[in-house]
Amino acid sequence: MQPMNVGLLGIGTVGGGTFTVLTRNEAEITRRAGRPIRITQVADKNTALAKQVTGGKVAVTDDAFAVAANPSIDIVVELIGGCGVAKELVMQAIANGKHVVTANKALLAVHGNEIFAAAQTRGVIVAFEAAVAGGIPIIKAVREGLTANRIEWIAGIINGTTNFILSEMRDKGISFAEALQDAKRLGYAEADPTFDVEGIDAAHKITILSALAFGIPMQFDRAHIEGISQLEADDIRYAEQLGYRIKLLGMTRRRPNGVELRVHPTLIPAKRLIANVEGVMNAVLVQGDAVGATLYYGRGAGAEPTASAVIADLVDVTRMHTADPEHRVPHLAFQPSAVQDTLVLPLSEVETSYYLRLRVEDKPGVLADITRILADQTISIDAMIQREPNEGESHTDIIILTHVTVEKNIDAAIVKIEALPVVKKKVIRLRMEALG
Amino acid sequence: MQPMNVGLLGIGTVGGGTFTVLTRNEAEITRRAGRPIRITQVADKNTALAKQVTGGKVAVTDDAFAVAANPSIDIVVELIGGCGVAKELVMQAIANGKHVVTANKALLAVHGNEIFAAAQTRGVIVAFEAAVAGGIPIIKAVREGLTANRIEWIAGIINGTTNFILSEMRDKGISFAEALQDAKRLGYAEADPTFDVEGIDAAHKITILSALAFGIPMQFDRAHIEGISQLEADDIRYAEQLGYRIKLLGMTRRRPNGVELRVHPTLIPAKRLIANVEGVMNAVLVQGDAVGATLYYGRGAGAEPTASAVIADLVDVTRMHTADPEHRVPHLAFQPSAVQDTLVLPLSEVETSYYLRLRVEDKPGVLADITRILADQTISIDAMIQREPNEGESHTDIIILTHVTVEKNIDAAIVKIEALPVVKKKVIRLRMEALG
Repeated sequence: MQPMNVGLLGIGTVGGGTFTVLTRNEAEITRRAGRPIRITQVADKNTALAKQVTGGKVAVTDDAFAVAANPSIDIVVELIGGCGVAKELVMQAIANGKHVVTANKALLAVHGNEIFAAAQTRGVIVAFEAAVAGGIPIIKAVREGLTANRIEWIAGIINGTTNFILSEMRDKGISFAEALQDAKRLGYAEADPTFDVEGIDAAHKITILSALAFGIPMQFDRAHIEGISQLEADDIRYAEQLGYRIKLLGMTRRRPNGVELRVHPTLIPAKRLIANVEGVMNAVLVQGDAVGATLYYGRGAGAEPTASAVIADLVDVTRMHTADPEHRVPHLAFQPSAVQDTLVLPLSEVETSYYLRLRVEDKPGVLADITRILADQTISIDAMIQREPNEGESHTDIIILTHVTVEKNIDAAIVKIEALPVVKKKVIRLRMEALG
Repeated sequence: MQPMNVGLLGIGTVGGGTFTVLTRNEAEITRRAGRPIRITQVADKNTALAKQVTGGKVAVTDDAFAVAANPSIDIVVELIGGCGVAKELVMQAIANGKHVVTANKALLAVHGNEIFAAAQTRGVIVAFEAAVAGGIPIIKAVREGLTANRIEWIAGIINGTTNFILSEMRDKGISFAEALQDAKRLGYAEADPTFDVEGIDAAHKITILSALAFGIPMQFDRAHIEGISQLEADDIRYAEQLGYRIKLLGMTRRRPNGVELRVHPTLIPAKRLIANVEGVMNAVLVQGDAVGATLYYGRGAGAEPTASAVIADLVDVTRMHTADPEHRVPHLAFQPSAVQDTLVLPLSEVETSYYLRLRVEDKPGVLADITRILADQTISIDAMIQREPNEGESHTDIIILTHVTVEKNIDAAIVKIEALPVVKKKVIRLRMEALG
């Protein structure tokens, strides 16, 4: 059969990996796809690099729009990233009737509704397995593997940089700053790590998963995002003593009156499989009403793991492109006409349990005042540690684990607790998920 | 749109679960599939049960062939099991131009080549996600999610009964017989547990995965199958001391001159995520050259978890059935024309590392004799334990872990070792996999 001609936009790490794997495994991939899949044109500002990577076997240009408009190109792979020119190029390619494969989580989380609507109208496929959890086929699992289920929630370790940092902080008992340095030295963190460490990258990914799981629009602007840069080694140690690990989780949960969509450091029971996902590895836990919990684990980043997902999409498009659009797998798991505009709930309405660390004077009655405040907010206590003050100190830490409650109750309790004269610092509040 | 009409053959545990979930989640499933999927006819010898389960809303018959021939049925779901009438019914349904969904691992492992050839000729889909690892979408992951990869090996905990028994033996230090009784009491083992405990069920499943991973025919008859009924609590304890867990693994590995296909109790490093899959849970670890290792975890059995996979197939067929067969996802991941008849290697050619337990007289020179024999077979030792004899005993255990070698070398060494007068019992030999 005729080969599928692919135009590659951006030949950095993932683009290079995609070219390498497509070339190395061409025979194997053709055996699966039924026809060769070939990168026939590459656009990159750095044409010298593009020529070097492709060994002069492929047409190279610095004009990405020329690729998006090239009549001989069947599929455009967008690996430029960001919401600027990448968006124009994707919209152009769609307008030109090309199928699109992208790893651009930011673009889809922020502009996905517009992009998928355009693809629907034009009858082309926009595939994005590489946008969430790198090489783990989690998009396919949620969109096609779990279609029998009413999905209840998804919890994911979907940012390798922060998972590496948290693993280092726990293993070595070091601070966030020290662990971040290690991550930079090993190439796991970028010079400006804000997107990763502040949870924005994870929020893009969990936003995409929430749309797939519940059949709702992308609502990145309503996601609650909290990173790990403020996390202290003490809290990781206390969590450990209580039988928990702290992970940066992307969480999305179905609730009667809306959907929870949040990213924050989260205590999870150490005995859970997902609590033992260490280093740069990713894992996504999906709770369905029929199947129960299923877990998907693997590399969430890197040249070839991400290329694995990009190429899986190329094979999917090659297999599916002749099907009438009515009978293709819908982009976001649900038929476009069946999407419901269920809203993401404000953080104050989130229901979960909490870890509180209080710095208090070591004197009688302190605990009574605090537990009274919690009781007044109908918050019940699940576990507590009160440490003896260190030698020569008059202040100590109290750690409290609560049962499930509403965020606004905790907010109110914390305001009252911080008003107590015996409480010497801002209360440290972390969220907990049983994932049971 | 018109509903898809499904004929259900067999309404036992999984059939009942399929009816329940399809009914309960009809709205959600229709939002995904684009049209309702309805069971309109059920065949079961026990028509009373069928009427009770379906609440009289569905036509019931005791003639399964009538369903396979019913012109109003689009998809036939075969949940009878076994290779007898189930095979006739599947072949009939295919001949009648119906798409087929089956959970029948034995049927596919033994007669899959014939069945998929017939489906190909007739242009119908035979879907079987439920045949391997229950609710875990592992077929889809291997067939569609990892298509970029040259798959190197797959290792799976794909039988919940045996994993439960092994977990019990380890947790409670009890014998196989005692753990089996617990499994029976809890309904995790059947009255005749042979299929599960002797590894036959796992062998059916890994046979199917080997075909999907490597693009080869089903070769169940060439699989090496060893169950857990002979496993002793002592070996589980010794393995633990050495940092390993014993699991019943289904293994299939690509080798230059063939494919390994085997099921046996296997020592795996306790620190691996898959080593911590306990109870009835299943997990499959897939090694691809681009993505590296990915793991898939969930419930491998039970009414609704298995129904989850059956219904995912129904949705897939509903989404895909109008596509021209040339451009559907191939049944076995590779295009039928691209299947290679690579053979499964004989066990003597398998390469892995080994755990050996020797019962020996506690006297000087014993170890020298044994290590000499191993050296002569070019087997190098990775670790060893020699226990002190128990009070008043003159015999003791020596445990040896070897580096990777060829099975036939171990066979030869064991023959020589057992011939030593100081060796008092048959040597216990278990295989090990690093899965790294």
